[in-house]
Amino acid sequence: MDPTEVNIPDVKDMNIDNITKNTILINSQGPNARVKYLFERLVTHLHDFARETRLSTTEWKTALDFLVSVGQISSDVRHEFILLSDILGLSLLVDAIDHPKLPSSTEGSVLGPFHSHEAETIESGKDISSDPNGETCLVICTVKNPSGAPIEGVKIDIWETDSSGHYDVQYSEREGPDGRCVMKSDKDGNFWFKAIVPVSYPIPHDGPVGQLLKLLHRHPWRPAHMHFMFEKEGWDHLITALYITPDPYLTSDAVFGVKDSLIVSLGKVSAIQAAEYGVPEGTALITHDFVLVSDKETQSLRDQNALKAVADLFPGKKMKLLDHLPVPDVD
Amino acid sequence: MDPTEVNIPDVKDMNIDNITKNTILINSQGPNARVKYLFERLVTHLHDFARETRLSTTEWKTALDFLVSVGQISSDVRHEFILLSDILGLSLLVDAIDHPKLPSSTEGSVLGPFHSHEAETIESGKDISSDPNGETCLVICTVKNPSGAPIEGVKIDIWETDSSGHYDVQYSEREGPDGRCVMKSDKDGNFWFKAIVPVSYPIPHDGPVGQLLKLLHRHPWRPAHMHFMFEKEGWDHLITALYITPDPYLTSDAVFGVKDSLIVSLGKVSAIQAAEYGVPEGTALITHDFVLVSDKETQSLRDQNALKAVADLFPGKKMKLLDHLPVPDVD
Repeated sequence: MDPTEVNIPDVKDMNIDNITKNTILINSQGPNARVKYLFERLVTHLHDFARETRLSTTEWKTALDFLVSVGQISSDVRHEFILLSDILGLSLLVDAIDHPKLPSSTEGSVLGPFHSHEAETIESGKDISSDPNGETCLVICTVKNPSGAPIEGVKIDIWETDSSGHYDVQYSEREGPDGRCVMKSDKDGNFWFKAIVPVSYPIPHDGPVGQLLKLLHRHPWRPAHMHFMFEKEGWDHLITALYITPDPYLTSDAVFGVKDSLIVSLGKVSAIQAAEYGVPEGTALITHDFVLVSDKETQSLRDQNALKAVADLFPGKKMKLLDHLPVPDVD
Repeated sequence: MDPTEVNIPDVKDMNIDNITKNTILINSQGPNARVKYLFERLVTHLHDFARETRLSTTEWKTALDFLVSVGQISSDVRHEFILLSDILGLSLLVDAIDHPKLPSSTEGSVLGPFHSHEAETIESGKDISSDPNGETCLVICTVKNPSGAPIEGVKIDIWETDSSGHYDVQYSEREGPDGRCVMKSDKDGNFWFKAIVPVSYPIPHDGPVGQLLKLLHRHPWRPAHMHFMFEKEGWDHLITALYITPDPYLTSDAVFGVKDSLIVSLGKVSAIQAAEYGVPEGTALITHDFVLVSDKETQSLRDQNALKAVADLFPGKKMKLLDHLPVPDVD
């Protein structure tokens, strides 16, 4: 940006009391109301954090060095900043804000850093895991609308770890995707596949996020779960997971993902199911009925929640929605 | 951390309203009161930011990808997170908190990302710049206490760009330090050296911070300046700079460093000075008297400011200082 093109407020003699107001002013020269609002709130909170803690230069430098290391360990298959957001409860919060759920809908859970777009599209019945040490598990599901009508043609991403608690992308010498697939629901909303019984596992803790968990005296474990993501035009994008009970980490998930409504017990395949699905009787079984709500309903609920929240948070301040996201109403 | 070793509050069914309280609880298992307080405030502000902006999943992901790129462009000689902190006004704020100045003291300014510990120690009189295109500048300074008594043996780091506005560390094929040095003040508090007249320059804007400045319609320029850092046991560490007037960016420094008391005019070397310092008459001249205050006085002012600030910010909450930094007083 050519400095002669921009109209800048005078900033000189900044101190503890005037730096925030002036940083916000200098950040407010662009035309995008949402960008301005985001940076006004960001700078306010960042500065208030420093003022309230009287952040020392040493602590500030330690934090900035930590953030560099979080960026540097990240790669195409490891997003350490997502992991950091997960353990600080931010991922759960953002999902809850962006995908409010009507009581009829399946609840959401955290995406985590291990979803991959590299996954085979399979027909119902296939086995998604090649792990010889995993315990086979039959998974039989439906996807329906809140009235119970099936939704056909929903794209479903499914992913889980192997029996040692590692996702395929965590192996540097893997041959291809494993423990994950993409499916489509049939005309009755059904999809079913073979997998392995999910196991609890620690999130990657050999990097900066692991060091932070140690500093905070927290463990890195997640309870056993299987990830599901549902996409179909007209329906709200659902990122969720099923958690297996019993598990020692159901009440202390390192990334805050567990919801009671998403906890399932492992069943056993009956003789009739064994014949129908072509697996031995007594095989471990997960069944679940997922419920999607329409984009429109979610959008309307999100708008309503956003306006109510900012009205409660900033009484007396006029706010409006711009592309469904709040900004100050300065007209 | 072995999960059986820690006593974890139950976290399940997290939502917009309970995630903050529970994240703070789970982060509060360690013994260090300062760590607990820092993360309590951090999580509170991070979550409030998301709640107040109704941060969307897309915005969240854009921000996390941006932070990865800030980490990845960083290196031994480029700390892009310091640069990010600089342009968001955080660096100025932290310095102001950590190094409060008595009215008698020289004011501080931002360190910036280009200080290097690799610099030659020189005697007064040497030339710190080898740039043939720079305009020679004689710099004559003193360092004294608030009563005007000289301080001997202060270690002084000095650094500036070359005439093209680049620090030595920005050249990948440099032969050694240039445009920087370390000096000691003599028994009269004097130190003097030859350098080049500082020029205005843009902070590095070929990376993520440059993209952010563009998004915010901000220019990347800093007014011409020379950095000084003063260290001696018993005296408060002073990081500052002298800014040269006139300069088009004195009121719009991209990193908020300019203070009126640090602005100097270029003089011209007189015939007497020319003979004394061995430079041609009429050479550009900077003179400045720096004033240091004792560690003890600064510590006492910092403690006093910290207690007053948290009392004002959190009326009714009992706070105390731990190693001179505020924490809740829970005894």
